[in-house]
Amino acid sequence: MKIVIVGAGAMGSRFALMLHHSGNEVTLIDGWPENVAAIKKFGLRAQFNGKSVVAKIPIYQLDQVQQLQNYQADLLIAFTKSNQLEATFDKVKTLIGPNTYVLCLLNGLGHEAVLQKYVSVDHLILGITLWTAALSGPGQAVLIGTGNVELQNFSPKGKEFTLQVEKVFAAAGLNPQYSDNVKYSIWRKACVNGTLNTLCSLLECNIKELGQTSFAPTLLKEIIAEFAAVAAHEGINLNPDEVYQHVAVAFTSDSAEHYPSMYQDLVQNHRQTEIDFINGAVWSKGQQYKIATPYCALLTQLIHAKEELLQQ
Amino acid sequence: MKIVIVGAGAMGSRFALMLHHSGNEVTLIDGWPENVAAIKKFGLRAQFNGKSVVAKIPIYQLDQVQQLQNYQADLLIAFTKSNQLEATFDKVKTLIGPNTYVLCLLNGLGHEAVLQKYVSVDHLILGITLWTAALSGPGQAVLIGTGNVELQNFSPKGKEFTLQVEKVFAAAGLNPQYSDNVKYSIWRKACVNGTLNTLCSLLECNIKELGQTSFAPTLLKEIIAEFAAVAAHEGINLNPDEVYQHVAVAFTSDSAEHYPSMYQDLVQNHRQTEIDFINGAVWSKGQQYKIATPYCALLTQLIHAKEELLQQ
Repeated sequence: MKIVIVGAGAMGSRFALMLHHSGNEVTLIDGWPENVAAIKKFGLRAQFNGKSVVAKIPIYQLDQVQQLQNYQADLLIAFTKSNQLEATFDKVKTLIGPNTYVLCLLNGLGHEAVLQKYVSVDHLILGITLWTAALSGPGQAVLIGTGNVELQNFSPKGKEFTLQVEKVFAAAGLNPQYSDNVKYSIWRKACVNGTLNTLCSLLECNIKELGQTSFAPTLLKEIIAEFAAVAAHEGINLNPDEVYQHVAVAFTSDSAEHYPSMYQDLVQNHRQTEIDFINGAVWSKGQQYKIATPYCALLTQLIHAKEELLQQ
Repeated sequence: MKIVIVGAGAMGSRFALMLHHSGNEVTLIDGWPENVAAIKKFGLRAQFNGKSVVAKIPIYQLDQVQQLQNYQADLLIAFTKSNQLEATFDKVKTLIGPNTYVLCLLNGLGHEAVLQKYVSVDHLILGITLWTAALSGPGQAVLIGTGNVELQNFSPKGKEFTLQVEKVFAAAGLNPQYSDNVKYSIWRKACVNGTLNTLCSLLECNIKELGQTSFAPTLLKEIIAEFAAVAAHEGINLNPDEVYQHVAVAFTSDSAEHYPSMYQDLVQNHRQTEIDFINGAVWSKGQQYKIATPYCALLTQLIHAKEELLQQ
């Protein structure tokens, strides 16, 4: 399969490597010049479950996508930051032909609204993944452990191709599972990010520390209730108690001392966060559906205020 | 007038000094042993608008109030921390006789509910003050600038004595003003604390920096709207636009680079804050009156979570 991976960060590198090794024609696009230069020069290097591997995979700088003239992928996988999705797709849209499918595996809500500007709903596939990945430097990935991918075509017409993607992913060892309700899974995962990521970033603590505060249960439940109310309006029936238990498991998990990615973006790197695609999306949808989401509203405002303060 | 000042911190020291100098019989009560020892040994020392002054004022350790057997004050002024008000009054209640009045000048809401356990409403006086004060060490106050006091008896019966207090304060140079709606002034001042103190503490910034974030107007207005809704239920008619303007003035005032007292308590000293008497009081009253106050609720929960995290 001709696969273009947009975003050669940690997760994009994992998928590129695994799909390349299983025989697909993989092309990378990335906006970080040092990363592109390193992969061009040395190939994509990775510590893959303890083994050093190198893969010669073509990579193009985002601003030079025109070098791929007339190239049209079978599948384009979005691995950008949420808040860079639109600007990035403005630049890669020439790679999306009438037969190209776009798969979005980003955390959060509302990406389909952005992607529908670039691809018809028939050619849109949504998913979530529990794979993890890290970068140790430009063009160097650290890929440890296992994971899976859950995916489903956005409109019924796309099912046939999505099942082909499932096969390709299975051959690559990506443990795909065709879902009959991927939107439910996306919302349920967004509840994890909208509680743990947001609160740890605001309170500057790790997941374990958050779980030890006496207000954690109340905070989680209030936030999840807002997600559930808005999801219900989109026909997704989250069970707030089940979601709460699912989120709270993280407090005592092996990775509880982990600082969520939003914490890393905001507190460590003073970058823009993806809040607008998590609590901000719930707030925004809530306004549209006339559902009150004051906790999501206030949390979004506070995270944005903190972004501005830390970028001063 | 026989005046007992409960809490010989910065502000208590200011009032003690000024009321002592104008000829009143002032007694101090305080819970901080080093402070009590210093004032016993050296007197209450102050830099008073640039001049060094010392006043020999009797002071008693909070745990040794029984040494003041049968002493009953004409006026007892509360200058504790809000969250220590109840525990402190449990210890000083023997000084409150049938003719003793209690004046509360603390910032925040809900102190009258605590004080009514110790004094009848007829003998309760509420107020606010714009005087400032600081401590440079135990028993050493730094008192600069000017201020005023607004006060009013809680129930009509107490007016006569309150007018006497006004005279005593005037003679001490405290610039008192008898108010015909002190509850309005208390609520309006609580709006300042419930926005600036709370947000600066949570976002770890000073007032000027908060004012420079693009979400500051929205945050202030949402919080003030909740205060106004709850105040209205108590017959206090705050004008949200006027209060917003009043609060926002602080962003460009001379003291905009100041870190509010709650920031000092929480971020610098890792102490309990007075949030339960500010946003927490609005949340609590809102629950009682069935008025939604989600911003105050979430802010209170977040500040408490941060207290716990910083005290770990």
